[in-house]
Amino acid sequence: MKYAAVSLILALAASPASAGEPALSAGEAAAIDKLIDRALADDRAYEILESLTTEIGPRLGGSEAEARAREWGAAKMKAMGLKNVRIETFDMPAWSRISESAAILAPFPQPLAVTALGNSVSTPEGGVTAEVVRFETLTELKNAPLTGIEGKIVFVDEKMTRTQDGSGYGVAVAKRSEATYEAAKRGAAAAVIRSVGTDSHRNPHTGMMRIRDNEKMAPAAALSNPDADQLARALLLSRGPVVMKLDLKTATTPAAPGGNVIGEIPGRTDELIVIGGHLDSWDLGTGAIDDASGIAITLAAAKLVDEMKGKPGRTIRVVMWGAEEVGLFGASAYAEAHKGELARHALAAESDFGAGRIWSMRTKFGEASAPKAKLFAEALRRLGVGPGDNDASGGADVSPLKAAGVPVIDLNQDGTDYFDLHHTPDDTLDKVDRQALKQNVAAWAAMLYVAAETPGGFRD
Amino acid sequence: MKYAAVSLILALAASPASAGEPALSAGEAAAIDKLIDRALADDRAYEILESLTTEIGPRLGGSEAEARAREWGAAKMKAMGLKNVRIETFDMPAWSRISESAAILAPFPQPLAVTALGNSVSTPEGGVTAEVVRFETLTELKNAPLTGIEGKIVFVDEKMTRTQDGSGYGVAVAKRSEATYEAAKRGAAAAVIRSVGTDSHRNPHTGMMRIRDNEKMAPAAALSNPDADQLARALLLSRGPVVMKLDLKTATTPAAPGGNVIGEIPGRTDELIVIGGHLDSWDLGTGAIDDASGIAITLAAAKLVDEMKGKPGRTIRVVMWGAEEVGLFGASAYAEAHKGELARHALAAESDFGAGRIWSMRTKFGEASAPKAKLFAEALRRLGVGPGDNDASGGADVSPLKAAGVPVIDLNQDGTDYFDLHHTPDDTLDKVDRQALKQNVAAWAAMLYVAAETPGGFRD
Repeated sequence: MKYAAVSLILALAASPASAGEPALSAGEAAAIDKLIDRALADDRAYEILESLTTEIGPRLGGSEAEARAREWGAAKMKAMGLKNVRIETFDMPAWSRISESAAILAPFPQPLAVTALGNSVSTPEGGVTAEVVRFETLTELKNAPLTGIEGKIVFVDEKMTRTQDGSGYGVAVAKRSEATYEAAKRGAAAAVIRSVGTDSHRNPHTGMMRIRDNEKMAPAAALSNPDADQLARALLLSRGPVVMKLDLKTATTPAAPGGNVIGEIPGRTDELIVIGGHLDSWDLGTGAIDDASGIAITLAAAKLVDEMKGKPGRTIRVVMWGAEEVGLFGASAYAEAHKGELARHALAAESDFGAGRIWSMRTKFGEASAPKAKLFAEALRRLGVGPGDNDASGGADVSPLKAAGVPVIDLNQDGTDYFDLHHTPDDTLDKVDRQALKQNVAAWAAMLYVAAETPGGFRD
Repeated sequence: MKYAAVSLILALAASPASAGEPALSAGEAAAIDKLIDRALADDRAYEILESLTTEIGPRLGGSEAEARAREWGAAKMKAMGLKNVRIETFDMPAWSRISESAAILAPFPQPLAVTALGNSVSTPEGGVTAEVVRFETLTELKNAPLTGIEGKIVFVDEKMTRTQDGSGYGVAVAKRSEATYEAAKRGAAAAVIRSVGTDSHRNPHTGMMRIRDNEKMAPAAALSNPDADQLARALLLSRGPVVMKLDLKTATTPAAPGGNVIGEIPGRTDELIVIGGHLDSWDLGTGAIDDASGIAITLAAAKLVDEMKGKPGRTIRVVMWGAEEVGLFGASAYAEAHKGELARHALAAESDFGAGRIWSMRTKFGEASAPKAKLFAEALRRLGVGPGDNDASGGADVSPLKAAGVPVIDLNQDGTDYFDLHHTPDDTLDKVDRQALKQNVAAWAAMLYVAAETPGGFRD
């Protein structure tokens, strides 16, 4: 399905399955097969992943560590032979964690494992010591009267459901975004939530709250799931009030340096396929699954396409987005910096859901182009990837592009265990399954081939 | 097999399987069956476990929290109707953790998850900053020259093998005990070890080193397994030295209050069966598997025997040993305080290997009594417990009794996952399988019945 040589009409005519539907030619199918073979035998994604997580480690958006990660990324792209490698910088507000601790003081004194939520303000000097008031869910808190819990510590104990597609997150994450505001509205001294996570380890899950507004926020933190269990039990077993101390110190720099790292595999036309992952991670772990894996998968897949005979039909642009976790600053900066060339963006996709095997795909193409999803499904079938609807989300860093009309594709990873690790100290290299990582690279390489070579694009 | 009514000779004569070997009578087997039925339907062990881990939480030997645990234990025993409930106090040296941190400073700056090992001295004010020298195993360190690593940080990277019977621990724990001395001998500034544990979480495993001797020790700490991986990779990937900072603050009080909590189910004779677990835990977690489970299992099992018709043949003494983790202070104090009555101790056993299902048993009886192990095996068969040899260890707190000639029995728990949690923050209530806990209680209750009723004891 080379861009210039084979037209869609030829491909349609050649379809053996059902006339009138797009299909890969035998030559194209063979090329993809070979590409997948090479990907499944290639360990470069793991090498990239190991290098980023070891040589940089944690890399919070806007930090000095993220700046080192950008240098690492540009050097890695150059070493791998990508062209037009550059760092596109921007300024951003940078939140950071200084210290955090929590304890039950009465009636059962003991420490609790806690972590400040991103954008949290500090507690007053010496911390907050107050009675705990538990809410089973965020909804219960929202429905609570506006008086009666002044000066207390709100505890939102809502649990998260384990799902393969990550849909449990969308439900559970609301408490992380909003508990701070609901607590402050009621004059509470602080908010603690049960971690947005599915594990049972003493590793609390951090994550961003809604836009910072100091006037309307209570200091907010997450307890690990076992600690949330413990606090809930203490409330149940105590005959009197449970008093907790929470001590958070955080800081914000209004304008810290941020940046996206960009490199390209030049194609035969100036149309662009934009792929990538985000370079930043939370500060607690080394961001192996979130999102060094996405960086590694997309870069390795692009390189495999680069090593095919001839240039790809469209240019493949690999982006390492900066500062995703802390507010999509890299995504916004990219969309702004490249708004003049968005019409040339034929397709965009992000890998940002760990390194579990890809099990399904979705597209968001124009109506007339929607049937071309079949070409991708055909290319990915051997890898156990099932077809999906034309309702792809595109990934967080791709959302501004999608909003501007750029077609997107999702290669959906198995996220059953993703929220055991997400945003915790436990997001480290040992959690990545090396074989599943290769399957990801193979799927991205096959997707890239179809994306680069399919005539006519995906907008119409 | 009631003590007074049925003699061993009768039991032997009644054996349907093989004449000359001990066997349970039909009545005894029926009584044990009923006891097991009741145990499998009883949730009191879980209630005890929940109460201790929630209402006390971490309870390091010699701490104020352990003192609260003793009050909790005595109150619990009284509430459950045990007799002669008392706390036998003693003095002990108490080590404690004040603060701990570690980081790679160069060439890949990032924090490391670390915990001080029990008995570690503090690092000098401001911590130790030095190059890391890695040793694959403790043996490699022991074989290393006595010069050449002065002022450096020794890193013993030895891995632990996962086993069902815990035998991997005996091999791996040597580095925890000895690395500090081997490092100090060579003038090293500090020692860090890969955690003695089989998990892959950012929770380092603490644990005791050999007797404290400040003059001959280097400050010593354990890295979590992912952090040990990371340090090993940094050493591999770096072209120059890897520089690490280790900052430990610890303290020791020469004479802190300690104690054992003791209660009894009085029997028809003054012979004693001593069972129990240890009341103290490490400070990092709430000691659910180590060893609130042992406390809960043995107390619940004794209570189930207490609820049978009539008194048991022998008195069942339940001991909550103090300060096991930090040097077996409770075990020594018990043996010393009770040395005048050790001849009356017919059998001793400790539950201290978590809450996994019991899968085998072992005895250490006198030669002539060894065949009586068959009675226990017969009683436990229904629970899936296999028979074993006459080479039981008896458990750490029972070791002084065993050394003094008291027969012991081991009910061996499945420890396949035990060292994922052992001595870490992750040793919390949620890790206990409620059904496996009941199986433990049933096995201990059945064992107690046979132990209390078998005539002639187990010494000969």
